[in-house]
Amino acid sequence: MSLQKKQLNIGLFGFGVVGEGLYKVLQQTPSLQASIKKVCIKHPEKKRNAPADLFTTNATELLNDTSINIIIELIDDADAAFIIAQRALNSKKALISASKKMIANNLKEILELQAKNETPFLYEAACCASIPLIRNLEEYYDNDLLQGVQGIVNGSTNYILSRITDNGLTFNDALKLAQEKGFAESNPKLDIEGIDAVNKLSILLTHAYGIVCPPQNIVHTGIQNLKKADATFANEKQYRIKLVAQAKKLCSGAIAAFVLPQFVDSQHNLYQINDEYNGIIIESGLADKQFFSGKGAGSFPTASAVLSDISALRYNYKYEYKKLNSPTDGHLTNDFYIRIYVSFNRLLQVPHHLFEQIDEWTSNKNGCSVSGILHFSRLQDSWWQNEYTSLILYPNAIIEKSELPFTVKQEQVEIWTEAISSN
Amino acid sequence: MSLQKKQLNIGLFGFGVVGEGLYKVLQQTPSLQASIKKVCIKHPEKKRNAPADLFTTNATELLNDTSINIIIELIDDADAAFIIAQRALNSKKALISASKKMIANNLKEILELQAKNETPFLYEAACCASIPLIRNLEEYYDNDLLQGVQGIVNGSTNYILSRITDNGLTFNDALKLAQEKGFAESNPKLDIEGIDAVNKLSILLTHAYGIVCPPQNIVHTGIQNLKKADATFANEKQYRIKLVAQAKKLCSGAIAAFVLPQFVDSQHNLYQINDEYNGIIIESGLADKQFFSGKGAGSFPTASAVLSDISALRYNYKYEYKKLNSPTDGHLTNDFYIRIYVSFNRLLQVPHHLFEQIDEWTSNKNGCSVSGILHFSRLQDSWWQNEYTSLILYPNAIIEKSELPFTVKQEQVEIWTEAISSN
Repeated sequence: MSLQKKQLNIGLFGFGVVGEGLYKVLQQTPSLQASIKKVCIKHPEKKRNAPADLFTTNATELLNDTSINIIIELIDDADAAFIIAQRALNSKKALISASKKMIANNLKEILELQAKNETPFLYEAACCASIPLIRNLEEYYDNDLLQGVQGIVNGSTNYILSRITDNGLTFNDALKLAQEKGFAESNPKLDIEGIDAVNKLSILLTHAYGIVCPPQNIVHTGIQNLKKADATFANEKQYRIKLVAQAKKLCSGAIAAFVLPQFVDSQHNLYQINDEYNGIIIESGLADKQFFSGKGAGSFPTASAVLSDISALRYNYKYEYKKLNSPTDGHLTNDFYIRIYVSFNRLLQVPHHLFEQIDEWTSNKNGCSVSGILHFSRLQDSWWQNEYTSLILYPNAIIEKSELPFTVKQEQVEIWTEAISSN
Repeated sequence: MSLQKKQLNIGLFGFGVVGEGLYKVLQQTPSLQASIKKVCIKHPEKKRNAPADLFTTNATELLNDTSINIIIELIDDADAAFIIAQRALNSKKALISASKKMIANNLKEILELQAKNETPFLYEAACCASIPLIRNLEEYYDNDLLQGVQGIVNGSTNYILSRITDNGLTFNDALKLAQEKGFAESNPKLDIEGIDAVNKLSILLTHAYGIVCPPQNIVHTGIQNLKKADATFANEKQYRIKLVAQAKKLCSGAIAAFVLPQFVDSQHNLYQINDEYNGIIIESGLADKQFFSGKGAGSFPTASAVLSDISALRYNYKYEYKKLNSPTDGHLTNDFYIRIYVSFNRLLQVPHHLFEQIDEWTSNKNGCSVSGILHFSRLQDSWWQNEYTSLILYPNAIIEKSELPFTVKQEQVEIWTEAISSN
């Protein structure tokens, strides 16, 4: 179905802050020739800033309306969103969504649905809202030449981290402030445990490297276990702590990808990305390092991305997922090393035997920490995933085997063990 | 002509660093199904890193070849490039160019040619090379909502400024170094006098605000008149000096646009953009402030942008120039104020009567300077365009009439005049 010359009639699911933002914006941009014909809502009793006859609670009313040629899904419930997505695509209606959770958790099915129905599904708003990322990855960066993508993709955790490191707030106070300011998703767990970030990373992996990997299979954590001592350590070293989602192509061609807290120094592009802002660095063999930053969430930034998708449907744009079909499609690997800092409550808890190299250890009344090099596969066990342990990457954390400063030195581990025993 | 399923056969004009870069890259990206069929060159005697039968000196051989469906123009001579552009579009061949000078100087005709022939002409490489700017302005930012665009769009001058402020080099030494490193265009005048930057600004104005204005009608200068004393002044105030191209929508809806040196403080996104890098800030009512940075020149970054244009032709993408046809298309205005610093050789040269307000003046053996507020129309006269005078904007330089701190204070001018007389 070509939308090129047609009036775009939109069936909208959800009328929360983003949905209402979109409604307002479309009224201000008549040049798009797009208007919302019907809005499906869950709670008809709520007062809405739009004419009553715009609303219905019956999804079928939108999905069976042949005059509606675009479905936009902006609801909070990922399962319900996926049902809407299936029905929309199977009805050959173009689809736009902002639900990273729904998309990340159903990527495989979503790809099949699009292929089967030959119907476009755009979701620029699902990754960093207004920062034009997905379409740029699709269009500007060829798989073979894309060396890495890394960034701050969750504004809520970044806001909390800024309050902790810049204002000395405790994690709980910072979280409360973020919630008051409206910078947290409906369920803060999704943000602070890195789930929202890894959802976005899994979508980015598809468009960057043609990798379809469920988010739960990607190593990730959030900022829930960071302690005051970690912020102090960062300050002493003049680092800031950021929650960074990253994917990097290794020499082997395989991709290293994870979401973990990371120290960044003042030379790093992400150092300046504070408060609720997002920032992404794309490294390519051709274009070198490119940096994008902006507001990654909020009603208008998200509506802005939805608007750009509407505009793209006008010329029948759809994601081609070229990299999925490329002969050099990527795959994830655990076979590399990372330079990390880990802090614990008690020195004896330190799993020093897991380290290939230990660079520094600290111990005082607030707890203890160790910094060194670890094989990434060590993170598949759960030793580091508890409230007493925090794990933070150093800048340029990824180390290839060939780059290891030296091979494992057993004597070093012995010196270390001795140090602990005598402590 | 649809290119969707076809093999893309390219006729290339020019085989300099960018042309050769593109040739290499296309060989590495078979997924694009695009190959260069023929290359038209000016100097057949030069040794080339490609088979001899690829080359010709006869433009008609490319333009009359019906199997060639894309013309890519990467030559240095803007006049010859425009002739090629006209012939390509009139032959209904899709066109890609990186020549900002040719495009900026012929915007009106280029728009007409595209409309008449219904043939796409893409030129992402013409503005900041690999930074995806033109298509993002076309697609992501609606006219009504775009508050401003500002950035460092010329890497050569930025490199020179970095060497002057960071390494204390003189202008001439810094320029020499830039030329040695290959960061200057073939004619350094285009860079250092701000002509390259204003060419890019005029292209950006078309895609941002639907304004078609010849670059020579936009107030601009480069860095040719900056003196050591200016760099010292900047250092003292902890500013860096950047050559900034900017366009801002005023309350009236009219657009303020110019290319001038500007002080930026450490809070400014452009402060971190050093050496040959480019950076652009786009402010929109919806998406707030977005920032893009990357390499704005060089063979591979430019080839990368050309590649993305080739990829876009695949799905018949063309610029829609929506904002040109929008009922609220913009126009430029001179009716606003700017906060500036001007330095001179001798105090008596200061045209203090032009200022609405004077905030600071300095005078010592190296020269003198005055900082204050000026009506922008004062820059239409040539008083500031000579080698003894440098003019630098302060951060947030644009001031609307309604924001003026106070009305003109004649007594202030009198105090100032007295100060000069007694000096």
